[in-house]
Amino acid sequence: MREPLATMAGYHLGWWDADRSLAVEGSAGKALRGALVFAAAAACTGGDVGDTAQIAAAVELMHNFTLLHDDVMDGDRTRRGRPTVWSVWGTSDAIVLGDALHAAAVQILADLRDQSIAVKAIMRLEATCVELCVGQNEDCSFEGRLGVTVDDYIRMAAGKTACLIGCCCALGALSAKADDATVAALGRFGHELGLAFQFVDDLIGIWGDPGVTGKPVGSDLARRKATLPVVAALNSGSEAAIELAALYADGADMTQSDVDRAAALVELAGGRRAAQRFADERIQAAVAALPDAVKSEDLMALSHLVCRREH
Amino acid sequence: MREPLATMAGYHLGWWDADRSLAVEGSAGKALRGALVFAAAAACTGGDVGDTAQIAAAVELMHNFTLLHDDVMDGDRTRRGRPTVWSVWGTSDAIVLGDALHAAAVQILADLRDQSIAVKAIMRLEATCVELCVGQNEDCSFEGRLGVTVDDYIRMAAGKTACLIGCCCALGALSAKADDATVAALGRFGHELGLAFQFVDDLIGIWGDPGVTGKPVGSDLARRKATLPVVAALNSGSEAAIELAALYADGADMTQSDVDRAAALVELAGGRRAAQRFADERIQAAVAALPDAVKSEDLMALSHLVCRREH
Repeated sequence: MREPLATMAGYHLGWWDADRSLAVEGSAGKALRGALVFAAAAACTGGDVGDTAQIAAAVELMHNFTLLHDDVMDGDRTRRGRPTVWSVWGTSDAIVLGDALHAAAVQILADLRDQSIAVKAIMRLEATCVELCVGQNEDCSFEGRLGVTVDDYIRMAAGKTACLIGCCCALGALSAKADDATVAALGRFGHELGLAFQFVDDLIGIWGDPGVTGKPVGSDLARRKATLPVVAALNSGSEAAIELAALYADGADMTQSDVDRAAALVELAGGRRAAQRFADERIQAAVAALPDAVKSEDLMALSHLVCRREH
Repeated sequence: MREPLATMAGYHLGWWDADRSLAVEGSAGKALRGALVFAAAAACTGGDVGDTAQIAAAVELMHNFTLLHDDVMDGDRTRRGRPTVWSVWGTSDAIVLGDALHAAAVQILADLRDQSIAVKAIMRLEATCVELCVGQNEDCSFEGRLGVTVDDYIRMAAGKTACLIGCCCALGALSAKADDATVAALGRFGHELGLAFQFVDDLIGIWGDPGVTGKPVGSDLARRKATLPVVAALNSGSEAAIELAALYADGADMTQSDVDRAAALVELAGGRRAAQRFADERIQAAVAALPDAVKSEDLMALSHLVCRREH
C-alpha cells in the first residue's frame, strides 16, 4: 500500500506510532478473529497452512476496516488507549483507509491458490460485510432512542459482531477443506461465540478496568449507549428502570456521579446479571453447535477466553 | 439489501426520491462505466451477455460507493441536482451505505458462473479500488495547497478516475473471453479515455452549464479546487497566474465576482486551452491503443461523447 495510507494502516494496527516510531506494547488488537480462523482450521485438520494464514489476514483487515469507519461514525477519539486514525489524520483519511483495507482483504482472498475456495470465501466475507453494515446502521439508530427491546438488541449484535466471528470460524473450516456440514457447524459455533463476545464487551463497557480495556470507565453509559445490560435493565419494569430511563432521556451531559448512578441502577434492575446470563447461554450454545470431531482444545480455550475477559 | 439501506441506495442511484416517490428525470447517472463494459465486450465479440451485465452492474456499484464516500469527504451537498445522501440522512448512513455497495459489487462478481473470470475480475476491480483510494487521498491533499504541478495532477487523475474507466474496458474484454493482450489493450484505451474524461470534467467544473451538469457554476473555483485548467494556469508563469495564485491563497470566501475573475484569469493564463489540448491528446492516445480488430463504432462513439459533453 502506498503512502500516506501505509503509515496510517500500520498505526491503526498498532505496529508503530503516528510518526512511525515503535508503538508501545498493547497497541495492537487481540487478533481474536484471525486466531479463530487458525483454531477452526486446525480443528478440522487437513488444512493448508498457507491458505489459512491468508484467510486470517483477510478477516483481520475486514474487521479493521469496519473499526476505522465505526470510529468515524461513533465519533470515538480513542481505541486501545491511543487516538483513533480520524482524530490524528482527519475523517477523510480514515474513510479512505478503511475503503482500501476492505479492498485489500478481498485481494488477499482472490489470490488464494484454490479458486473454488477463493470464490466461496469472498462470497461469505462480503455477505458478512453487508450484515456488518446493517448492524452498524441499526446500532447508530439506537443511540438516544428509548424503547429498544432485548430482541432488537440481540438482532443488532448478531449483525454487528456475531456474523463476522461466525464467518471467521466457517472460513477456517473452509480453508481446511472441511465438508459443507462442518463449515456450517463452525459458522454456528462462531455466531454464538460472537454474541457472547458482544455481551461480555457490553459488561466491560460499564464495569471494565480502563487499565485493561483502554476505554474510559463508564464511557458507554456517558454516551447513553443502548448496550445489553442497559436494555435489559430498562425493560425490567423495576423502580430502578424508571430512574435509569429518566437519566437516559435527559439531554444534559452526564457527570461522573450520573455515570456511577447509572451503573448502580443497571445492576439494581438486574441488567448486569441478565447480560452475564445471556453470555453464558451463548457460550453453551456455541459449544453445543460443535460436532465432537472438531471440538478442539484451542476452540474451547478461545471460547472461555471470550467470557473471562477482565471486567 | 435491507432497509433503510435499500431506500438510500435507490435514492443515490436516482431511482426514486428520499420518500420513495418517483425521481425526476435526470437524477440517475450516465452509467458511462457500465456502458463501457458492454461496448468493450461487444467489440471483442464472443461475450456472454449474462456475465457482461453482472460485470457492468459491479463497476457501477463500485463507482457509486466511491461517489457516496467522496461526497462525505468533499462536503459536497448536491450531486446531479439533488441533495447528496449524507446531506439527507447524515454522514454515518452515507459511509455505511458506501461500504455495503462496495461489498455488493464484489458479491456480484463472485457469483459469476466462470470462477476463473470471477477471480480475475475481482482482483482487477479491488486493485482499482486501492488506486481510487490513493487518488482520492491525493485529491483531498491538493485542496488549499499551492505548488501542485501538472504532472502531480495527472498522476492523481490517473488514480482517481482513469484507473476505474480502464478497469471497465478491461473487464468488458475479460467477460468476452478475450486474450490477455486484448484485455490489456482495452485497459489502456480506457485509461487514456478516463484521463480525457477527467480533464473535460474539470473544464465543465468551470465553464459548464449548471442546467446540464447539475453543479453550481464555478463551484470548483469557489472551493479553490486544483483542477487541470487551474493547475496549468498557475504553472504558466504569466501575469494572470500571479493574480490567480493570490486569489487562491486568500483565505476569505470567494464572491461571485471573484469566481468570475478567477475563470477569466485561468483562461487568460492559457489553462482552458491547455486542458482542452490535454483532453484531445488523451482521446487520440486512447484510439491509438485499440487494435484494429476491436475498434468498434460503439467505442468510438463513447470516446467522442466523453469529449463533447456540454461545457
